[in-house]
Amino acid sequence: MTPQVGYFPEIPAPDADAAAAAAQRQLRLTKPAGALGRLEELSIWVSACQGVCPPQQFERARVVVFAGDHGVAGAGVSAYPPEVTAAMVANFAAGGAAVNVLAEVAGATVRVADMAVDTDEPLSPAIGAHKIRRSSGNIAVEDALTPGEVVQAIDAGRAIADEEVDSGADLLIAGDMGIGNTTPATTLIAALTDSEPVAVVGRGTGIDDAGWARKTAAIRDALYRTRRLSADPIALLRICGGADLAAMTGFCAQAAVRKTPVLLDGMVVTAAALAADRLAPGARQWWRAGHRSTEPAHTLALQRLELSPIVELDMRLGEGSGAVVALPVLRAAVATLASMATFEEAGIGEA
Amino acid sequence: MTPQVGYFPEIPAPDADAAAAAAQRQLRLTKPAGALGRLEELSIWVSACQGVCPPQQFERARVVVFAGDHGVAGAGVSAYPPEVTAAMVANFAAGGAAVNVLAEVAGATVRVADMAVDTDEPLSPAIGAHKIRRSSGNIAVEDALTPGEVVQAIDAGRAIADEEVDSGADLLIAGDMGIGNTTPATTLIAALTDSEPVAVVGRGTGIDDAGWARKTAAIRDALYRTRRLSADPIALLRICGGADLAAMTGFCAQAAVRKTPVLLDGMVVTAAALAADRLAPGARQWWRAGHRSTEPAHTLALQRLELSPIVELDMRLGEGSGAVVALPVLRAAVATLASMATFEEAGIGEA
Repeated sequence: MTPQVGYFPEIPAPDADAAAAAAQRQLRLTKPAGALGRLEELSIWVSACQGVCPPQQFERARVVVFAGDHGVAGAGVSAYPPEVTAAMVANFAAGGAAVNVLAEVAGATVRVADMAVDTDEPLSPAIGAHKIRRSSGNIAVEDALTPGEVVQAIDAGRAIADEEVDSGADLLIAGDMGIGNTTPATTLIAALTDSEPVAVVGRGTGIDDAGWARKTAAIRDALYRTRRLSADPIALLRICGGADLAAMTGFCAQAAVRKTPVLLDGMVVTAAALAADRLAPGARQWWRAGHRSTEPAHTLALQRLELSPIVELDMRLGEGSGAVVALPVLRAAVATLASMATFEEAGIGEA
Repeated sequence: MTPQVGYFPEIPAPDADAAAAAAQRQLRLTKPAGALGRLEELSIWVSACQGVCPPQQFERARVVVFAGDHGVAGAGVSAYPPEVTAAMVANFAAGGAAVNVLAEVAGATVRVADMAVDTDEPLSPAIGAHKIRRSSGNIAVEDALTPGEVVQAIDAGRAIADEEVDSGADLLIAGDMGIGNTTPATTLIAALTDSEPVAVVGRGTGIDDAGWARKTAAIRDALYRTRRLSADPIALLRICGGADLAAMTGFCAQAAVRKTPVLLDGMVVTAAALAADRLAPGARQWWRAGHRSTEPAHTLALQRLELSPIVELDMRLGEGSGAVVALPVLRAAVATLASMATFEEAGIGEA
């Protein structure tokens, strides 16, 4: 039921020749070598992903917000009631959420996908096109998904990535929305990295000390059922994940299959990405970390992925909001390599 | 010759009522309190500067690159020859420099002002409209400017800020261009903060160890002539600054007088800003630090100004480039406060 090896085809590496050409071109631009710092590395990475130097500015950067409820929210692990998930889906559709206004500033568009919101009907057929189920099992006491559902959800995320790439997306961002979702995401990261819960449990949307203790207990109970499964990401997504997390996993892996760069968002997305890189080894070469959130498990997951965040603004919202704030930095990197004059063009001798 | 007290009028504080309204509004937006991290503080600051809540998106963000040569460049303190300054002025005018392409991505426009480039004629009458002189004295052995010139240069920066604000600029960014300019800027920061040169001298555009030793020696010699003058920023700008640094000082101070927010760039601009906040106490309330460069003196100056950089990308280019890369983050902050739905509008109960 949970095929692992070969679930995704072998991930191709970004184009090394384009990367070499980009690194060479950076040296000819009218600025001291290395003076653009991180922008230089990012520009070279985009060139490699696109297989061309100079790189092209992103014309269709696309955010997909994966929404889902979590049974564990009933255990008092969040500052908000589960009904907020559905209300926020409506807020995304109406354009009023943070990710909507941040995406507009950054030149990206937003799609919301209801994977497992706890409502009878999705907000619209389009939003619910890939819906797997209502909510998920309470991971403190039961598995989040059935063996069939977890594969369905990974495949749904894969299909969404395909839809977006086929529609012309040249940069993908996954976002998350789901009351209680930092509990399964933290469990997933702890399981994938063999970490103790107390070292990685954060405050999510802002729980108090008693809530934090309940959250930590839920994570500890869920982790117990994941023992000896740290090498089986699909089993982990089934036991302590959810349909939204499994879909994000499929989405991040498939983006790499489709050679499309991804900006990762916060802890929840990065938990899915960590599972995706286990399921599709090397997928992380197609990703950069948009930001570092305040959740401790996020830093742990980024370290394992060997990704360094572009911005650190103490954000902890999810939705793709941190990645979208980082997007203009990536655009800036592309712009320098694509549009700056070279020393030769400007008639300046190199140092 | 160097009036200090009363050189600038008393600096007004940003609007506390607008700040309070902005902080209140942040709590009503559809996200957990504090979840936007640094964006929340920035949005409140912009509201306070504009005196209105919600704040308005910047419509005319303006970069002014202050160009000037430095006599000390002849002492082998830079990896580049002085002729590059004039060539880069032409590159700015042609739109080929980093700040040009970064400003375009960020929605800002660029002006270049020749304050002291070492050429017979400025590139154009507009670019040279406020030119003070050719280059400056070699600060290792003589004063950079005469007592008259330093006042002229501060007033020129002040006039440029007035021109820009009168033309509708709602956000100002100062940039620097000048081979050798990290030597006077570092000296200025060391003098204003009573620091030892070895603790603050960086590699600038990328000098080798021998160049670093020459630079440190030049700074030590210049600092000797500034002793007992750390409370006299105009004297310091005269002895160990230059016309470009003095103009940036006037520009940053006058922006505050005109109640116009400023994003600071790297070490050179921040050196001038540190002098400006001494000359016009409280001016820093109107500034935010765009980025942190790799120059050690930059961190020291930011600490003294109690400003925390928005991005840290290991950039070390000047030109305003780091501030312009940070500008979209400031725009993102404004957008959230201006355009996100409130809980009430979205029909969601608060936590």
